[in-house]
Amino acid sequence: MSSDPKPRPYPLAARQDSAHASTIRFPEFEVTIGGRNVTVIAGPCSVEGYEMLGETARGVKASGATLLRGGAFKPRTSPYTFQGLGVDALEMLATVRAETGMPIVTEVIDTRLVDTVAMYADVLQVGARNMHNFALLSEVGRLRKPVLLKRGFAATVSELLMAAEHIMTQGNTDVILCERGIRTFETATRNTFDVAAIPVLKRETHLPVFVDPSHAAGRTDIVAALSFAAIAAGADGLIIEVHPRPPEALSDADQSLSLDAFDELMRGLAPFVAAAGRTLAIPRGVETRQPLHQP
Amino acid sequence: MSSDPKPRPYPLAARQDSAHASTIRFPEFEVTIGGRNVTVIAGPCSVEGYEMLGETARGVKASGATLLRGGAFKPRTSPYTFQGLGVDALEMLATVRAETGMPIVTEVIDTRLVDTVAMYADVLQVGARNMHNFALLSEVGRLRKPVLLKRGFAATVSELLMAAEHIMTQGNTDVILCERGIRTFETATRNTFDVAAIPVLKRETHLPVFVDPSHAAGRTDIVAALSFAAIAAGADGLIIEVHPRPPEALSDADQSLSLDAFDELMRGLAPFVAAAGRTLAIPRGVETRQPLHQP
Amino acid sequence: MSSDPKPRPYPLAARQDSAHASTIRFPEFEVTIGGRNVTVIAGPCSVEGYEMLGETARGVKASGATLLRGGAFKPRTSPYTFQGLGVDALEMLATVRAETGMPIVTEVIDTRLVDTVAMYADVLQVGARNMHNFALLSEVGRLRKPVLLKRGFAATVSELLMAAEHIMTQGNTDVILCERGIRTFETATRNTFDVAAIPVLKRETHLPVFVDPSHAAGRTDIVAALSFAAIAAGADGLIIEVHPRPPEALSDADQSLSLDAFDELMRGLAPFVAAAGRTLAIPRGVETRQPLHQP
Amino acid sequence: MSSDPKPRPYPLAARQDSAHASTIRFPEFEVTIGGRNVTVIAGPCSVEGYEMLGETARGVKASGATLLRGGAFKPRTSPYTFQGLGVDALEMLATVRAETGMPIVTEVIDTRLVDTVAMYADVLQVGARNMHNFALLSEVGRLRKPVLLKRGFAATVSELLMAAEHIMTQGNTDVILCERGIRTFETATRNTFDVAAIPVLKRETHLPVFVDPSHAAGRTDIVAALSFAAIAAGADGLIIEVHPRPPEALSDADQSLSLDAFDELMRGLAPFVAAAGRTLAIPRGVETRQPLHQP
Repeated sequence: MSSDPKPRPYPLAARQDSAHASTIRFPEFEVTIGGRNVTVIAGPCSVEGYEMLGETARGVKASGATLLRGGAFKPRTSPYTFQGLGVDALEMLATVRAETGMPIVTEVIDTRLVDTVAMYADVLQVGARNMHNFALLSEVGRLRKPVLLKRGFAATVSELLMAAEHIMTQGNTDVILCERGIRTFETATRNTFDVAAIPVLKRETHLPVFVDPSHAAGRTDIVAALSFAAIAAGADGLIIEVHPRPPEALSDADQSLSLDAFDELMRGLAPFVAAAGRTLAIPRGVETRQPLHQP
Repeated sequence: MSSDPKPRPYPLAARQDSAHASTIRFPEFEVTIGGRNVTVIAGPCSVEGYEMLGETARGVKASGATLLRGGAFKPRTSPYTFQGLGVDALEMLATVRAETGMPIVTEVIDTRLVDTVAMYADVLQVGARNMHNFALLSEVGRLRKPVLLKRGFAATVSELLMAAEHIMTQGNTDVILCERGIRTFETATRNTFDVAAIPVLKRETHLPVFVDPSHAAGRTDIVAALSFAAIAAGADGLIIEVHPRPPEALSDADQSLSLDAFDELMRGLAPFVAAAGRTLAIPRGVETRQPLHQP
Repeated sequence: MSSDPKPRPYPLAARQDSAHASTIRFPEFEVTIGGRNVTVIAGPCSVEGYEMLGETARGVKASGATLLRGGAFKPRTSPYTFQGLGVDALEMLATVRAETGMPIVTEVIDTRLVDTVAMYADVLQVGARNMHNFALLSEVGRLRKPVLLKRGFAATVSELLMAAEHIMTQGNTDVILCERGIRTFETATRNTFDVAAIPVLKRETHLPVFVDPSHAAGRTDIVAALSFAAIAAGADGLIIEVHPRPPEALSDADQSLSLDAFDELMRGLAPFVAAAGRTLAIPRGVETRQPLHQP
Repeated sequence: MSSDPKPRPYPLAARQDSAHASTIRFPEFEVTIGGRNVTVIAGPCSVEGYEMLGETARGVKASGATLLRGGAFKPRTSPYTFQGLGVDALEMLATVRAETGMPIVTEVIDTRLVDTVAMYADVLQVGARNMHNFALLSEVGRLRKPVLLKRGFAATVSELLMAAEHIMTQGNTDVILCERGIRTFETATRNTFDVAAIPVLKRETHLPVFVDPSHAAGRTDIVAALSFAAIAAGADGLIIEVHPRPPEALSDADQSLSLDAFDELMRGLAPFVAAAGRTLAIPRGVETRQPLHQP
């Protein structure tokens, strides 16, 4: 397959050769995604308030996360559940960014909100439910800010690449792909983490490939194992849900790691990053630590 | 399950009792969807021009279709393929509606286009790829026009009902649900038509339940069989892709019926509608015809 | 597809032309499967005793079933649940056959038991879990008794036809195919009934195509609707689980119809059989009855 | 989940506590599976002849594999393709075992062949297609030889554990579980490797958990990446298809590694085994080698 000379249907996303790998830089934060770096994004599913956000951000940064995630506008299956704090959450994210020096990643779910979200976010996330929302893809394609594009839970790898192409044809080539599990018959996990998508994507595209082990698992006890597997398979980074008090989380309580569990994950991750010949990109002033015990 | 006294998470969509069935009326066209009626919507995947639209409309009406479908804004996997004629297509649909007396069904794929599409359409379609686009669901929920809501190709029946609830909580209760096949490992068909979703939905909700056999099949040779099965399982109607010259279609050429094949389908359908104890709602002046030969 | 001149990988199972349809005859019982006939097989999941078997057989025969099903050797997920009465059950089936004149259908799950089961059964069933058990397929292929071959719950239509070919290459061409639902992400039903497999199979093969709506549904309230859909889609028959007192069933209690529910199903079925231009093959002395009320 | 006090439906397979991990010993070969060891089984899909088998065995041993796999009786979708060399292949496996000191793993597909295969094999494999063949599970349960039990391609993790329980209730507790990919809508890979099954299984059971990356991938270019991911996720070993000249393989040509590619995989594997805090169990006299270049 790698030697297939047939033109790909996604010319902008397609890798030209095995050395072709895009990086995405945030110079003011001294953060680079892609290349030899393995980068970890962490934070709460939803921004529930300024204090919990700051507490989470400081905690995950101390453990080695370099970007902060947090939902302001939440796509929720039921119209009767918490839908996010909206613009107030964006304000909190901006404040905590200033305090911690962490770039922020947050989701946009409506074409009409793209400009607003872009005023605050360093990376705009297009969620799994919107991977086929071509109007939204075009709109974030007009920005000059990176987009984290999650794979739809019933999308093929090829469709994910075509969705990236929708963004890139509008001029925005800073796209980060994110595998987050697909829907299958298996019920032991919330989704089935398609780890093979990582090496397949790395062969097909020059774009960085991230993994969201929290949504793939839907249960905290295997998030670390999936994170290690993702890095071993060649992923460029992880996006992980962390909450200071998971049982109180307003969304995704079952899959949010505590700060302690996240710290343990990061300790266990370091040797796998080294085994993969990669560098764990940690915040300035934070040291990589080795596992207290074998994973 | 039917006697489960537990409150449903979709109170507005939930059926109160076995006699609870909503109808959707288009008085100016003498068309009613739901109740004892079986209603057929037909037309091209994309509106490709005024002449082909009119030709299709007159043809499907003569065979017994009461509403006309036609795509103006097309959600396409690739950014390099035909994306629809946009507002020009809406104008053509309105013209052909005036000429034929058929209400028109067309898709909306962006919150910013909802008002524009609503100016022309009699029924706004939310496509499978946007079933989880909650911003769009809310926006069409603010209208007072019926919405045809297609099931996402990896959505559960329960999620389809929750998506309807998103629309209904905004005040718009005229929602038509539409099963169109789900994604599975089987490759003999484009999707796997989940015929069991029909009786499950009829037990759960008072909303009309339609079926799109064209997208479920992805091949013309079994569209009629799936249509008959849908009606036998209790569906309230069908939405079928028809093109005057399928090989020339700019989209979905593999699954579009010719006018002759559609006419044959309608002839075969009538006895199944009768067997189901239903009435085939055909346009004024058109006669139901019996099959020329056994299906 | 139907005009594809490429040779099929299953030459024995492949249909030569549109008129090519095999029938399977049981002359001593005046029963014929296939052709214009629609045939219904009914009975308990497991033979739990002679009395319940006889009661069920007389009941389903009075409602129009022509063959009796009943499990003697049960493939069960857990080794700690009821595994069937074995040869004792075969004896009971043979006794009830003599009493009712109904040919019997029962499952074989081990190559070493094929001869034993064949001494009693009129039709040997190969269950979904054994569709890929090629040793068993070869062994029943050496018999001169019909085989009801169920589709594996993750098998493609093409693999089902290849499994039939495994039987047929051994000399036994009396194979009945049976769709019984495939495994998907949907949880509203036990399996997803792939109704499209029926017309696809009818185009590909001359073998009779049956449907097991009980296993597809996994819930009694939609078994009738799936049965009607199967016939509308072109199925040659049904195999339905019936128990005189479903709540007491030792296996598959959730999906077994009562005798009354089965009778109601058969009343509702008749008009759909007629709409399909087929004949409901009912036992001598039993009359087809019309529905008491509209389905 | 891990703290769930509810009794498991698979009491023999269930892990009692976090330190509970079974090992399987082959004392005459100085090979131990499980515990801290990571063990690699390698060899051809089918035994095609004595020379190719010996060549493969010597090659994979030199690269660090400790057990030799090779199919004698092949379950094949089509009755018209190569079905394996049968007892002749078993003889070749025994000869090569004597020459190389490698225990042999081979599949059994029929209850009537269990004793024959057990006379030759050190580990009997039950393939994915037979995971639900309960007669075969019982029969290998009567042996006192280890069984490698592959997960069915549509089986849940829970069903895999129940299948192991079928074997164990007959007295044979030396069961090795093997994840090999499940069937989903994704077509970029032959199956979808369910890497999350590894940590889920390790929490549920004391049995060793292996992975077959060759069948999961169905393409050689990602077998190494999946192998690394498996070890990072906690797997106890791998079973990998290797052929001296893959393009000439009579089965599974697309997914068989060459001897060179297997050697490169083993070099890349070592750092991940170390990162996981495990020991790569290599044959006496063979040295673990570090990667020539970063993976």
